[in-house]
Amino acid sequence: MAFQRKLLCTLALVVASLHVAAAGDPDILTDYVVPSTIVNLTSDLFTFTGMRVIINAPPPPAFKVLKASMAEFPGLNGQSVSYAVLQYPTGSVNPPHTHPRASELLFLLMGTLEVGFVDTTNKLYTQTLKQADMFVFPKGLVHYQYNADPKNPALALSAFGSASAGTVSIPNQVFNTSINDNILAKSFNTDIATIQKIKLGLRC
Amino acid sequence: MAFQRKLLCTLALVVASLHVAAAGDPDILTDYVVPSTIVNLTSDLFTFTGMRVIINAPPPPAFKVLKASMAEFPGLNGQSVSYAVLQYPTGSVNPPHTHPRASELLFLLMGTLEVGFVDTTNKLYTQTLKQADMFVFPKGLVHYQYNADPKNPALALSAFGSASAGTVSIPNQVFNTSINDNILAKSFNTDIATIQKIKLGLRC
Amino acid sequence: MAFQRKLLCTLALVVASLHVAAAGDPDILTDYVVPSTIVNLTSDLFTFTGMRVIINAPPPPAFKVLKASMAEFPGLNGQSVSYAVLQYPTGSVNPPHTHPRASELLFLLMGTLEVGFVDTTNKLYTQTLKQADMFVFPKGLVHYQYNADPKNPALALSAFGSASAGTVSIPNQVFNTSINDNILAKSFNTDIATIQKIKLGLRC
Amino acid sequence: MAFQRKLLCTLALVVASLHVAAAGDPDILTDYVVPSTIVNLTSDLFTFTGMRVIINAPPPPAFKVLKASMAEFPGLNGQSVSYAVLQYPTGSVNPPHTHPRASELLFLLMGTLEVGFVDTTNKLYTQTLKQADMFVFPKGLVHYQYNADPKNPALALSAFGSASAGTVSIPNQVFNTSINDNILAKSFNTDIATIQKIKLGLRC
Amino acid sequence: MAFQRKLLCTLALVVASLHVAAAGDPDILTDYVVPSTIVNLTSDLFTFTGMRVIINAPPPPAFKVLKASMAEFPGLNGQSVSYAVLQYPTGSVNPPHTHPRASELLFLLMGTLEVGFVDTTNKLYTQTLKQADMFVFPKGLVHYQYNADPKNPALALSAFGSASAGTVSIPNQVFNTSINDNILAKSFNTDIATIQKIKLGLRC
Amino acid sequence: MAFQRKLLCTLALVVASLHVAAAGDPDILTDYVVPSTIVNLTSDLFTFTGMRVIINAPPPPAFKVLKASMAEFPGLNGQSVSYAVLQYPTGSVNPPHTHPRASELLFLLMGTLEVGFVDTTNKLYTQTLKQADMFVFPKGLVHYQYNADPKNPALALSAFGSASAGTVSIPNQVFNTSINDNILAKSFNTDIATIQKIKLGLRC
Repeated sequence: MAFQRKLLCTLALVVASLHVAAAGDPDILTDYVVPSTIVNLTSDLFTFTGMRVIINAPPPPAFKVLKASMAEFPGLNGQSVSYAVLQYPTGSVNPPHTHPRASELLFLLMGTLEVGFVDTTNKLYTQTLKQADMFVFPKGLVHYQYNADPKNPALALSAFGSASAGTVSIPNQVFNTSINDNILAKSFNTDIATIQKIKLGLRC
Repeated sequence: MAFQRKLLCTLALVVASLHVAAAGDPDILTDYVVPSTIVNLTSDLFTFTGMRVIINAPPPPAFKVLKASMAEFPGLNGQSVSYAVLQYPTGSVNPPHTHPRASELLFLLMGTLEVGFVDTTNKLYTQTLKQADMFVFPKGLVHYQYNADPKNPALALSAFGSASAGTVSIPNQVFNTSINDNILAKSFNTDIATIQKIKLGLRC
Repeated sequence: MAFQRKLLCTLALVVASLHVAAAGDPDILTDYVVPSTIVNLTSDLFTFTGMRVIINAPPPPAFKVLKASMAEFPGLNGQSVSYAVLQYPTGSVNPPHTHPRASELLFLLMGTLEVGFVDTTNKLYTQTLKQADMFVFPKGLVHYQYNADPKNPALALSAFGSASAGTVSIPNQVFNTSINDNILAKSFNTDIATIQKIKLGLRC
Repeated sequence: MAFQRKLLCTLALVVASLHVAAAGDPDILTDYVVPSTIVNLTSDLFTFTGMRVIINAPPPPAFKVLKASMAEFPGLNGQSVSYAVLQYPTGSVNPPHTHPRASELLFLLMGTLEVGFVDTTNKLYTQTLKQADMFVFPKGLVHYQYNADPKNPALALSAFGSASAGTVSIPNQVFNTSINDNILAKSFNTDIATIQKIKLGLRC
Repeated sequence: MAFQRKLLCTLALVVASLHVAAAGDPDILTDYVVPSTIVNLTSDLFTFTGMRVIINAPPPPAFKVLKASMAEFPGLNGQSVSYAVLQYPTGSVNPPHTHPRASELLFLLMGTLEVGFVDTTNKLYTQTLKQADMFVFPKGLVHYQYNADPKNPALALSAFGSASAGTVSIPNQVFNTSINDNILAKSFNTDIATIQKIKLGLRC
Repeated sequence: MAFQRKLLCTLALVVASLHVAAAGDPDILTDYVVPSTIVNLTSDLFTFTGMRVIINAPPPPAFKVLKASMAEFPGLNGQSVSYAVLQYPTGSVNPPHTHPRASELLFLLMGTLEVGFVDTTNKLYTQTLKQADMFVFPKGLVHYQYNADPKNPALALSAFGSASAGTVSIPNQVFNTSINDNILAKSFNTDIATIQKIKLGLRC
């Protein structure tokens, strides 16, 4: 599993190194938004082929996300919708996270999946999804997915009601940034050693 | 093809007989919206299993849409996102239409697809999509899809940035309602006989 | 009527040649938006005199629209409202169309007018308007107007709840762009000859 | 002029006695909103004939407003647009006021009109409008209109980017409610006698 | 009191000389908006220390506002929230005004305060606030505050649901701009001498 | 500290037992929203006195939040703004959390405070606030506050750009609901014993 984590860490760092772009606008007064870098407007602006890599590819060694949001697919600017392809090898988990700018509507293309979210009154809602099932994770709430099947990978497509939903990964944002150990120990009502142990496990 | 049209007509009538529901609200002040008919809230509100019917089913005789919008999946109320599964037998077309309340982001799961949309300056943008490609149809604009492949069916999943995007089918709304023949003849700069011929072909 | 169509075609081409402007924003954090080209801000930014041409002018030979949207009246940027003046000579029609970004509220200043729109359940709503009557065409739905009076022209003013409502003309966008004849024939369940006949009639 | 004021006062009281309706919603998930009181939906919901009274009517004795907002025209619910007809006898004024929920786009149908608004930096913008001219008053800002022509009445149509723009009349809301004389004297840096004189003049 | 007014006037002029900035956007597609002038992004963008001046400072000679809106605190851009600190010496008033772009939620930190607002049906709502009380002034409506306590100053903090709520001061915008005396006399149903007297009192 | 946690737990349970109310609407077409239970509308709807309890009260034994959101203060419905009073005894922490529906603008009334938030690229921004300082926590991002002062309590007031911002407490939602131990162990790349230890510490 150490190798899988390494991979995840590398991926996370790549994502983290992206700059936060200047503000865009979900309500537009035109049919679409043409990036200033485009000289000759063609239908390529509205097309995204970056997901072809998943066809017939072997399952990834760990849980993996491929995004088609405004950053990867500039034609989505102003259209209030985006996608992510989610690949779950057997036993893998998409750790608890939130999307600050949109709800997520997951469609399970292949396999089975344990999913759950917690509402703001601390109530947990879980479900076991089968192929072709959908589940909606409301905007801003903590949720996760887990492929409990010991043999078969799972594959899902998630739609978001924003071109730039954003992701807040709980393990990474809480334990893999430099938030003070003492503050975290108090927050989780535990000792500093436990915090440091978790931090070490998540370090890249 | 007459049989396929019959099927399409039946489907259209079923859809048309649905009542327009009272207004809902895309901006909510709660985590989610619980329908007043629900006594015991469980995770079933957030789950939709209505797409299981497409698994291993033979391709439909004509182009067919299965929707997972707020009408079919009440848990989407307030979440600003929805899905449709689109099935294209060989040579079939999803006729020119618009969605008044959302952009559409199509993901081609299987086959190939000719797609196009026209912007408000009357410019046509077309593309030939391959498996795993995406294409975005901006909000409110006329668009269509066509499976030109003579042998293989196509299958797509479309996401919308609204729980209730709505569909305005051009052939049906213009030629299959009782808009006066004379008005249509003037509108399309043609004779009444041509209008009546088209109307007859679309009649159920 | 051929001459009238020529005129309409010329008008359509002029409109079509306008470039799609960069995205603006309906929700502003200032009182108004000053275009970057304005050096000395005066009340002229908030004034539009482009409609004076209709005073005492003879009725146009065909249906004619004069717009006062953000493109013609830059002071409307961020104000979420715009106008169009609609002139209907006897027997003329404003062909079926939609506005992707706003509802239309028509006020009949002069004459009588047959109006109609089709909702997303395919139900047609029609009305005969008299002078000073209003009619609302909901956002994104197909609608038309027709001056059935054999003697008198009609004149209307329409307000839109957006500074840039946009217009999707069904005849032009479906039959006067280069959408493939075969796709259209299948879409309208008719033969290619009929499609080509309609296309020819609408060609400029 | 006393008689004119009486009329205005009566009008104001009628408006003031209207109850504030329960909240509606400008962003709808349906084509339109059908009021719960309507059993049989027809095109009458989308039609408003209340403005016919102005045809060939003699000019009113004082400035007069006829509204077609959601309160008078329920079909506007959710459509984000409304109208008002404004009648200005010679020398009459529409006193300084604001609209809390929309910008106003005035179209001068007849006569001439002095208009003005003040932005939040206290800068006054004025204009003299001629027939067929438009002027936009940005959302929430103080504005007025004045028919300075000694002989001819003026007539205008105003559009609002909301079905319920609301009106805050400065004279009435500040001096014709029971705000304490002392508070007003301090606010306007004047003596109580002056405040009381203005209040008396505006009393109905 | 003449001196206090001088101070207020100076303050008003400073505010009035600020240019109206180009439009920003309350709905953002990023976590935050980094001003183009910032080269090195640090947490200082999210911090505002401009209110430290009120600590242990003697009460101001007249009512005084310190704002922390987007203009003073650029990090608020896109965050839809801002603050103002309000200082009321004994007997002072915050004159009738409106905020065109947000509701105001006042929290009384110290002293007592008479507050009031008028709704669009001309109904006045008043309240006497004690320490730690809150009062909400709905968006766009006329409201005021008055410290009636003869001995103790009052101090309040107000929150706004916009980064740039804007302020329309009734006395200043109506009587301290150059709106024509005759128009104002007609508007307030009084004589020109009374208008000129009020204007003189408010002149800086 | 065990006692403090007990208190926190009790508080959390009380909050958690509140039912999720039916959806409300931040965009209203009226001045304000009157709850259906109110027969006689007075200014009490716009007034909140629930914060008087903090005056001269001894500091709480643990970090404590008093909310004035729509649930506690119904007059805020539709006004897009709310408050929370935050009390920090020495050494106490407000654990990492997010607000799904609004940004938070904190104003430090008393003491000093260590604050921080993590953006979606995993970058941590921290600051040490002094009395009268403000800090903005962008919408949906993980943030915390900590009173590192060994002697003095801290007191803050936070404003939110929503009447119902919602709170997602990371420790409680992730470790104090019944999310499966195995899923959490995988998510945090640690062993089940560590997860169970943290869960036990947070159990009420």
